[in-house]
Amino acid sequence: MTSKPTLHTSLSPALLHLYDLSNSVVVIIDVFRATSTIASALYNGAKCVIPVDSVARAIEISKNIGGIAAGERDGKTAEGLEHGNSPLEYYRELIENQTLVLTTTNGTRLLQMALDKGADTIISGSFPNLSAVCDYIVAEKKNVVLGCAGWKDRFNLEDTLFAGAVIHRLKNGFTIHCDSSLMAETMYAKNKNNLLKFAPQLTHYHRLVERFGLIEDIRFCLTDDVANVLPLYKEGKLVVH
Amino acid sequence: MTSKPTLHTSLSPALLHLYDLSNSVVVIIDVFRATSTIASALYNGAKCVIPVDSVARAIEISKNIGGIAAGERDGKTAEGLEHGNSPLEYYRELIENQTLVLTTTNGTRLLQMALDKGADTIISGSFPNLSAVCDYIVAEKKNVVLGCAGWKDRFNLEDTLFAGAVIHRLKNGFTIHCDSSLMAETMYAKNKNNLLKFAPQLTHYHRLVERFGLIEDIRFCLTDDVANVLPLYKEGKLVVH
Repeated sequence: MTSKPTLHTSLSPALLHLYDLSNSVVVIIDVFRATSTIASALYNGAKCVIPVDSVARAIEISKNIGGIAAGERDGKTAEGLEHGNSPLEYYRELIENQTLVLTTTNGTRLLQMALDKGADTIISGSFPNLSAVCDYIVAEKKNVVLGCAGWKDRFNLEDTLFAGAVIHRLKNGFTIHCDSSLMAETMYAKNKNNLLKFAPQLTHYHRLVERFGLIEDIRFCLTDDVANVLPLYKEGKLVVH
Repeated sequence: MTSKPTLHTSLSPALLHLYDLSNSVVVIIDVFRATSTIASALYNGAKCVIPVDSVARAIEISKNIGGIAAGERDGKTAEGLEHGNSPLEYYRELIENQTLVLTTTNGTRLLQMALDKGADTIISGSFPNLSAVCDYIVAEKKNVVLGCAGWKDRFNLEDTLFAGAVIHRLKNGFTIHCDSSLMAETMYAKNKNNLLKFAPQLTHYHRLVERFGLIEDIRFCLTDDVANVLPLYKEGKLVVH
C-alpha cells in the first residue's frame, strides 16, 4: 500500500514558510480578485498572464512586449494604469491573443513568495476554475499546499472557502493532518449552497461592494467553473495547461 | 452614541504584529495546555505564575525564589525539569502558596511577543476560565485582541474555538470587522455542545492523546469554568485579578 500524498492549507502569506513547497503543487488563491481575474483572462483567450510585483514593472514590461498593463492597489485600479483587477474587465474582444501584465496587492505577491521559497509547480485557483484545479491536482498525485493570499497578511474567509472547496472534493485522496484544512472544509461545507448570501459578512465584501460597488465582481468570483481553465506558472508566465 | 470597542482574533503568533496591542486587552490563548495550566495553578492557590522563555531560566529563577520550575517542550516535560505542563499536575497540596515558574513551546512565547509589541494589559484564557475572561473583558470596556498561540506558528483549532467561545458570548458589545473572528465564532457555535467529540479531529489531540495518553488533560482543558480565575500579567507575573 502506498501512502497518500499530504495536503496543507496556508491561511496567510505570513504562514507560507511553515510548509514544504518543493515537490508540491502550490495553489495560489486570491478569490477577490487576482486569481479570478487570471482565470477570466486566460479563459477569454489571453496568451498568458505575467504576474509582477510593482506598477512600474507592469508598465515597463507591457511596453517592451506590447502587452496590457493592469493592476490594483488597495482594491482599485493602481495609479498610472488603465486596467484594474476586475475579472469582468477582461472580455474576449479586449484580451484575446494579448499578454496581461498584472500586479495586485496580495495574489501576485504570494506567487512571488512561493517562488522564493522553492516551489516548483505553481497553479492559480478560484471558484471560476475550481474543477480545473481539482482535475490537475488529482492527475499530478503530488503533495499539495493551498496558499491563501489573504489581505495584507491577514486571514480572509473567501480564500479559505476556496481551499475548503478543493478539500471537500479531494479529501479522500490525501492524508490531511492540518487544522487549517479541517477548518477550511468545515466552513465551506457549511456555506457551499449559499456563498453569495454569506459574502456580505466578509471584510473584503465591504471593501469591494460598499466602497467600489463591485457586486458583479463578487458574483463572478464565487461562481464555480465560469472560467474553467488551469493557469500553470512556467518561466515567468501563467499559461493555460 | 459612543462607538463600541473593536475585537480582533490573531490566529497565530506569526500574525500578532498585524494588530494594535496597545490600549487593548490582549488575551493569550493556549488551550492545550499552557493557559489551562496557568488557570489551574492559580485556582488551586499558587501565589503567581512566572512565564519564562527557556528551561535554563525557569531553573535559575525557581532556585532564586524557591519556586517550582515547570515546563514543556514538544508536548512533554522539558529535560531537566520535574514538573510539566499538565493542568492536572497542579493540585492544591502541591501548588498552594507556591510560585510556578513556567516555560512552554507556544503560550509563554506568545505572551513575551505581546509584551515586545507594546501590549499593556495581558490576561490568559482557556475554557477552564472562560467566564472569568469574559467578565473581565466586559468590565474593561476596551478594544480586545484574542491571541491564539497555535503550534510553532501553525494555526490550531482548539485556540480558535476558545476565541470563538469568547466572541459567542460578547459579540454584541463589540465592533467586529475581522474574518478570523467570524470564522472562530462559527466554528465554536457549530461544535460548542460537542467539544470533546470534536477533539479527536485536532492535530494536537493526536500529539497529546495518542503519543502521551493525556485524555484527562484534554477533558479538563475543554471544560468551561473548572478553574474560573482571571490571570492578569503584572510586573513579570501572572496573578489572580
